[in-house]
Amino acid sequence: MAASTASRLSPPRLHAAPNHPLRRSRFSPLRAAKLEAVLSIGTHVIPHPRKVETGGEDAFFVGGDGGGVFAIADGVSGWAEKNVNPALFSRELMANSSTFIKDEEVSQDPQILLMKAHAATSSIGSATVIVAMLEKTGTLKIASVGDCGLKVIRKGQVMFSTCPQEHYFDCPYQLSSEAIGQTSQDALVCTVNLMEGDMIVSGSDGFFDNIFDQEILAVINGSPGTDEAAKALAELARKHSVDVTFDSPYSMEARSRGFDVPWWKKLLGAKLVGGKMDDITVIVAQVKTVVIPDDEGSGIELEKVGGEQLAAAGVASAEQSE
Amino acid sequence: MAASTASRLSPPRLHAAPNHPLRRSRFSPLRAAKLEAVLSIGTHVIPHPRKVETGGEDAFFVGGDGGGVFAIADGVSGWAEKNVNPALFSRELMANSSTFIKDEEVSQDPQILLMKAHAATSSIGSATVIVAMLEKTGTLKIASVGDCGLKVIRKGQVMFSTCPQEHYFDCPYQLSSEAIGQTSQDALVCTVNLMEGDMIVSGSDGFFDNIFDQEILAVINGSPGTDEAAKALAELARKHSVDVTFDSPYSMEARSRGFDVPWWKKLLGAKLVGGKMDDITVIVAQVKTVVIPDDEGSGIELEKVGGEQLAAAGVASAEQSE
Repeated sequence: MAASTASRLSPPRLHAAPNHPLRRSRFSPLRAAKLEAVLSIGTHVIPHPRKVETGGEDAFFVGGDGGGVFAIADGVSGWAEKNVNPALFSRELMANSSTFIKDEEVSQDPQILLMKAHAATSSIGSATVIVAMLEKTGTLKIASVGDCGLKVIRKGQVMFSTCPQEHYFDCPYQLSSEAIGQTSQDALVCTVNLMEGDMIVSGSDGFFDNIFDQEILAVINGSPGTDEAAKALAELARKHSVDVTFDSPYSMEARSRGFDVPWWKKLLGAKLVGGKMDDITVIVAQVKTVVIPDDEGSGIELEKVGGEQLAAAGVASAEQSE
Repeated sequence: MAASTASRLSPPRLHAAPNHPLRRSRFSPLRAAKLEAVLSIGTHVIPHPRKVETGGEDAFFVGGDGGGVFAIADGVSGWAEKNVNPALFSRELMANSSTFIKDEEVSQDPQILLMKAHAATSSIGSATVIVAMLEKTGTLKIASVGDCGLKVIRKGQVMFSTCPQEHYFDCPYQLSSEAIGQTSQDALVCTVNLMEGDMIVSGSDGFFDNIFDQEILAVINGSPGTDEAAKALAELARKHSVDVTFDSPYSMEARSRGFDVPWWKKLLGAKLVGGKMDDITVIVAQVKTVVIPDDEGSGIELEKVGGEQLAAAGVASAEQSE
């Protein structure tokens, strides 16, 4: 029996306690000319359990352009039914992205980067994709097609999150070799102003389908750096993905869309639960500031920051990372 | 007994069917000089059931500047315990916002608008607040402090959503007359590129705490215009807010934070459910394009579009709306 009162749920909302640590530092965009925002980036990829030998179909790249840039592409696995390797498209898309990011026209616009990288990709297949570029002023620019995701964590809470785009359950928007797919014009394009210390957590749907926000926050809070955080997050998602009793974000979403176990299992009291086995890519980036000497007019120092790699350009797939 | 397999949950993700209606019109920002984005805005406010006579503590304003602008402020009710009318701060904040939006410096930057409006507000109290400004190119600029919300709906799905900021459950970030509150510097500041036909649904927490995304989508889909949609959404949220058996977003969040019914009720099988009685403000805006004659260099026509009011400037609270 469900019982409660609405008033039980409506305590007066309290004024913030005087000693709450609310103040934080913030970029003064280009006013304090010596401070520039950069990303300290950690990455980790774990292929689908049945795709370990081929490395899976996710791919990503990380670059040092601007304040830092990264992208993730998730090859759509349905292509395997047509005897097409679904990894080819996502890997070429990321390789092309890492080339075009050097182009001045696209280095400031993730949607143009997607357009150019997509146009240059000749492999057959399709992929969901997300690109994030940090400007030195602290503005993060995002373009996303499909169900890769990105969240920003500030002061221990998720303060920004992208939403997946899909045609229907489990059929995301995707850049494709075929004219029937989406284009960069279909991307969600947005920006968010970041602050020093903000953490970015981005991943393929194989990550976000298998982990809850509260788990992400706990792992981020308990990790010494972005490399460790990315690895710990990917491993927690993998653990959930093969757990047939875990009530994952994916199984909750499936039930909310009307999917269910067969009727005879339902009669026995079963419900649709379980993780979702998939390639898992995680990128964790922390926003830091670097001091640029007055006499340096352009460029940022590419250096080790806090033990993590700062945006050394490169393309990777699970083959290389795992 | 929970039973399923992960593979049951992992169908291959399908390629989009060839006849899927994916293409849509899109703004060509300033390339097609005659097309400008504007908002067709509908609003509806329903005060807390015990605050109908005073009009509640939400306030909002709608203006025609740029492609359209709106803001919502939710006065923090805890001030009533200190014999301060919580509505004064939110109403003055919105009145000041509607004044400063005319200022060229702030008309392009919602965070500067918040800063100036906050600095000019002399009432005692505090409020959560969200401001959204549409540029004529289709870029929506958002600044939010606390737990007012904004979602963008495109092609029948939520493709963008703000996240609430809070100190702890039911204590949101808030602009305040006191130094211990937050400032505009604490705002979530983001932009999202909109397309013709996109729907924006914004509201105070009293709205989003009492309605699910799927319900919002259904109401938007079934409404002939933004006025009707805003009214229907507010009324559905009000219905849920006084329903002690409704398992609302608010009660689900409360349980996830460890809140529960008293132990003796729990022994009887009860669980914490119910809507949340609160002031409910809803703003629904649809992105439309207007054709500007070649010889008009600036400004957009303020006119009736599709039966709804297009951004006639004004400030309102529940006193005036209900």
